[in-house]
Formats: sequence, C-alpha cells, structure tokens
Amino acid sequence: MTITTPEFVARLARAQSAMAAAGLGALLLSTEADLRYFTGFLTRFWESPTRPWYLVVPAKGDPIAVIPSIGAALMGKTWIRDIRTWVSPDLNDDGVSLLIATLQEVGGDIGMPFGLESHARMPLAALAQVQAAVTMRSDQGIVAGLRAVKSADEIAKITKSCAIAGRAFARVGEIAGQGVPLSRVFRNFQRLCLEEGADWVPYLAGGVGRLGYDDVISPATDAPLQTGEVLMLDTGLIRDGYFCDFDRNYVVGAPDPLAEEGYACLLAATDAGRKAAQVGAMAADVFHAMADVIAHGPSVAGTDPGRLGHGLGMQLTEGMSLIPTDRTTLVAGMVITLEPGITLPGGGYLVHEDNFVISADGAVQISPPAWPQLQRI
Amino acid sequence: MTITTPEFVARLARAQSAMAAAGLGALLLSTEADLRYFTGFLTRFWESPTRPWYLVVPAKGDPIAVIPSIGAALMGKTWIRDIRTWVSPDLNDDGVSLLIATLQEVGGDIGMPFGLESHARMPLAALAQVQAAVTMRSDQGIVAGLRAVKSADEIAKITKSCAIAGRAFARVGEIAGQGVPLSRVFRNFQRLCLEEGADWVPYLAGGVGRLGYDDVISPATDAPLQTGEVLMLDTGLIRDGYFCDFDRNYVVGAPDPLAEEGYACLLAATDAGRKAAQVGAMAADVFHAMADVIAHGPSVAGTDPGRLGHGLGMQLTEGMSLIPTDRTTLVAGMVITLEPGITLPGGGYLVHEDNFVISADGAVQISPPAWPQLQRI
Repeated sequence: MTITTPEFVARLARAQSAMAAAGLGALLLSTEADLRYFTGFLTRFWESPTRPWYLVVPAKGDPIAVIPSIGAALMGKTWIRDIRTWVSPDLNDDGVSLLIATLQEVGGDIGMPFGLESHARMPLAALAQVQAAVTMRSDQGIVAGLRAVKSADEIAKITKSCAIAGRAFARVGEIAGQGVPLSRVFRNFQRLCLEEGADWVPYLAGGVGRLGYDDVISPATDAPLQTGEVLMLDTGLIRDGYFCDFDRNYVVGAPDPLAEEGYACLLAATDAGRKAAQVGAMAADVFHAMADVIAHGPSVAGTDPGRLGHGLGMQLTEGMSLIPTDRTTLVAGMVITLEPGITLPGGGYLVHEDNFVISADGAVQISPPAWPQLQRI
Repeated sequence: MTITTPEFVARLARAQSAMAAAGLGALLLSTEADLRYFTGFLTRFWESPTRPWYLVVPAKGDPIAVIPSIGAALMGKTWIRDIRTWVSPDLNDDGVSLLIATLQEVGGDIGMPFGLESHARMPLAALAQVQAAVTMRSDQGIVAGLRAVKSADEIAKITKSCAIAGRAFARVGEIAGQGVPLSRVFRNFQRLCLEEGADWVPYLAGGVGRLGYDDVISPATDAPLQTGEVLMLDTGLIRDGYFCDFDRNYVVGAPDPLAEEGYACLLAATDAGRKAAQVGAMAADVFHAMADVIAHGPSVAGTDPGRLGHGLGMQLTEGMSLIPTDRTTLVAGMVITLEPGITLPGGGYLVHEDNFVISADGAVQISPPAWPQLQRI
C-alpha cells in the first residue's frame, strides 16, 4: 500500500494552484517530510546530518530533485524523473551551485516554509548564498496546509500504525510490573512495537508516579516500578512512513483513588474533545471543550492545561495545536491527537492521548479503544 | 556514567577561549547535539518539530537555556542554572522575543554554526527577526571543532554502544536465513539491539545481493533472502546518548568467490586505513591509504570510491569526511569510522565499516573484531 503516482500528481496540482495564487515561481523544500510528501522518498538516511537534500517544486511542470548522488538510485524508484545530483560531501560547493542554477532556470520568487514547526535543513552559509542569488520569501504556509489534510491512503497508514501500537500496549503486562526498572520497560516496549509490525520506533516517552508524573520528556531511569505507581507510555512508531502518537496508562497493583479519578476525567475530556472536533470547528473550540472538563476534574486550581493535542502524520506532531489561540478550521481528512492532561493535587501530571480522523460524520477514533480504568499490571 | 559537571565546565572554557579569539559575544545553538554538548539535555522529544530550543553560550559566564516550559523540569536536572522559558507553541511569538532579549543582554556578535552538516533548527521567520536584532555571523567552526575531539567518558560511551551492536550482530543467525523477508530481518535486528542494551535504534540500513547491493539507503522490502546472497546490516544505535556506526556482512549459504574476494579487499582496506590514521595525519591521507587498496582489488575500473569514513559521536555522522579534499588533522580523542566500499564487476556495491579511536599509539578499534570471511547464516 504505497502512495500512488496519481496521488503525488494531485498533491503537485494543489501546490501549483496555491503557488499561482501566491505569485511564487517555485517552492524550495529541504526537510525529510516535505520532500517525501511530494516524492515518496523514504529512507532513514536523514539520520546523518552531513548531506543536504533539496526539492524544487516549480509553478509549472514536475518537481526537480537536487540531491547527493548517494540518493539517486532510491529517488529513481519514485515518480520523480528530473534528478540532479552532486557528489556529497563537497567541502567547497555542497550542491549550492547546482541548486541555485536550478532555481534560476525555474525562475520567479522562491517560497520556503517560514513559519512555526519549519526550518531550512541546510547550512546557513548555503542559505545565504541562495538568498543572494534568488528572491526568497515565505511559502505562506502552502506546504503545511496541504500536508494537514490527509488522503484515504495516508489515513489507512496512520490507522495501521495505531493498530500496531495498540497491540504492543495490550502486551505491556508481559514486560512491566512491580520491581522492573523503567529503562527495561522502555527497551522491551520498543521490542513489542517491532514484534507487532513497527518499521522503527522514533519516539517513546513515559512517566511514573503514584499521582501522575513529574515530567513527560525525560529518558527512562533504572528506578524500579513500585506498587501503586501509575506508568504512562507514549509512543510514536512508524509503519510505511506514517506515525501514530498516543499513550496508555497502567497501574502497578491498586491505584490511588485520586489517580483513578484523574484518569476518568481525562477520558471524559477526550470524549468532549471528540464531540467538539466537528468539520468547521476551530482547534481552539476543541481545546476549550476539553479544558472545561479538566477544570471541573480533580485538578490543581489555576493550572495551565498547555497544548491538549495536535495534528500528526508523516511527523510525530504537525499542523494545528489545540490551544486557545489556534483558529485553524477543522476539515475532513485531518488527523489529530486529543491529549488532555491534568495536574493532580499533591501529585504530578497525568496525560491521556488518542488519535482521530476528522470526517463529515464527526471525529472517528483510529487508535484502539482506551481501557475504562487504569490498566492493572 | 553520566557526563560530569567538570566536563561541561571544561567544554565551556574551551568554547569561550575560541570565542575570545574569534571576537564573538556569544554562541547561539539550536540543534539537539549542540545543546546537549554544552548542557547534557537528553530527550527524544526533539522528534517533535513543533518547538524550537535555544542555548546561548556567552563569552563570559554560564550558558543560558531559552526553551519551552515543557522542558524546564528536565533542563533543571542538568548543570544549567539560567533557564528562561516560554509557553510553546505560541503562534505570535514562539520564544523569539525572549531569545532576542537574552542575546542583547549578553551583547556582542552572535556566532552560529554556518558550515557543512549544520543548520539552524528554527523557523526562517524567527531567524530573520534575530538577524535583524543582533549581528549574527559564522561561529567559524568552533562548535564542530570542539565536538570532534572526545573525552574519555565520551569514548567509553561510544565503545559501549559498539559492544551492544556487536552482540546483536553476533546473533543475526537467529533471525536471518534463506527465505526470510528482509523487512522481518530489519525488525528483528532492531529487537536484538534493544535486547542487548540499546536505548533506541535511530538508524538501520542494509543491502542484499549476490555480488553486493544496489543501494545502501533504501528501506527494507519484503523480498525473501536467497541462497548465495550477501546481507549487509549497518546500524547506528544509541546508548546514553552516544552512537556507534558500523556494519557486518553475512552470506546465505556459500558466497560467490568474487564476493568473498571483495570482502577480503575491504578488510585489507580497513587495515590500511587504521595504520594511516595516526595523530598528525590528515583525513585525506586515510582516504588515500584505503582507496589504494580498493583500486587493487576486484573493483570496477574508474569507480568513484565516495566517502570512506567519517567522524561519529553524539550524531551518526559528524566531523571529518574521509575524502581527498578533507585536510582535517587527526588528533588524539577523535572517533572515526573506516568505511571502505567497492563496486564488484557485474555486481553492486559492497561495504564494510568499523569504528576507531585516534590515540597517540595509533588508531584503536572499538567495534568488536570483524569476522575474517563473510559470515555464513
């Protein structure tokens, strides 16, 4: 189930339509997800920071790949036909002249992603050379806007990743329990994800505590799990180039009643978010629907609920943020996470997360059903 | 075995000495490895592209973290004491004002990594705002230069990662053989890496073919391994924040004699590279020592041997390239890969890779000994 050439052609057509409206001669793209969106070029080689990779999407005609020769064979397997290469790394001219010549051949103003979540994956020295040679300006969010609305094939891929993670989460009782170091749980959970079909596991976070966790981004320590502690695991695994991003909460033995109450509140907030996530609603509306439930739960007064979800797809997080200021309008085909969190009195943070597709019939959950109570392990 | 505060203080002192020579008021850093080098801030949360993270290293005084509030707890566990946060994502001002105020408070010209392998992990719109507010110029390679020479603790960590991968490579017979799809081999090899102690497995590549492989960056297909085929697996796994990066070659049943001959040539080239990798030699010298052996092997005449190795450490690839034009001088404490490749007549590419520390007594291999012939599976 690979993204088909007609879908790439349709993506290009939508981009070119938006570029015409913006008066752009071409888009210049440099990051993994942006290149892959228009080409299908999928490789883990991006882990190496050494080589830059460029794609020029002209206002008319097909995309032009300007890439290191080491990638020519793989790019040749995609639908891209105009592939221009140099032998990289080149300490004097690492593709910059070839890129500038290509941009000048295409002509017109060059749009690059300028906004939140974007960056130019190229040396600043090279960027300055390009900016001196052509007129570069913001793509006005064209690429992010296109990527935010998923096709049926993309939704199927994300759903498959969700199912894989769901099967791994269902097996956590095999690997976690009283006395097991968290670092071992992390290693073994990634193993479960691979056994269940993940291609790789780019992201795993977690937290432990009786009444929630201190922090949700720290690496695992060797501290053993204790009876009564809540364990949260949050994974973004990849299958066929698409992420899931959701978590599950467990408890070692019997939970503190307040933790169970907090968890119930998060499920209720998720449900309120799902109901609010209608076509035509704004990201902020979904935030408020969830924040209202959390405010009436066992939360510390005055807590900043933070971001309560976001888009996902080719990246772990992309597109809208569920915050009070995000006025992005939901349209059918968007895929989002609902990720309510609560700070418990005398405790830490508790977070629940599920994944949903926005459809004309409302938000449809694509992560497997969450368990109604903290899962005993 | 964590990097200690005295080591961070020493890194800072070396940076400040170089900054004084370059006339810089501060360094502005934005990427995972650069921030971690000066702080010890280790998290997989960088997988999310949403939030920028900044570190300001002033010419005098301690580093200042300018980061999203979600990272404050974890940064607070490092030796960094001046931690300035904002609630991110902020659609109007995602930390830019706070960053500019901090840079102006520190004063002087601001150096950022500008050269090969670097990029600014921040939106171009934010970069333009910073460039309008302060004088920004190249850091003249200060950060890359510091990172290239490893401490004893860093070398111990890389060596540990090498040992973990070595144990996983030794078990490939358990998971690969005639008829097994390559995609399953990839999944299970990552599982072995985790079982042997990897924290996570950011990189896995491979190739299959009777006389070498077409390509070394493509994802695995479901094609089953066939008798007589060579299988190469190349992993960059992480333990305690440090990579190894080496490969191993196997053969399903008995190899083609030419493949075996090619493999022997690569081992000889690696040995020649090891002998050439003396303190005071240049990267180019090591390249030529290896390329000469390859030219006398069973290689296709006129083949461009490409890059024959590189530095490694906190990133899969970093620092020097073993190419004819890289005049980097080897100093004790550098960690490099030797990665000779050969194109076999009538076949594809064959590559071998091992990891070495440069020392006063010569290059010391830190990946486990390679097997003398293609390993039968």
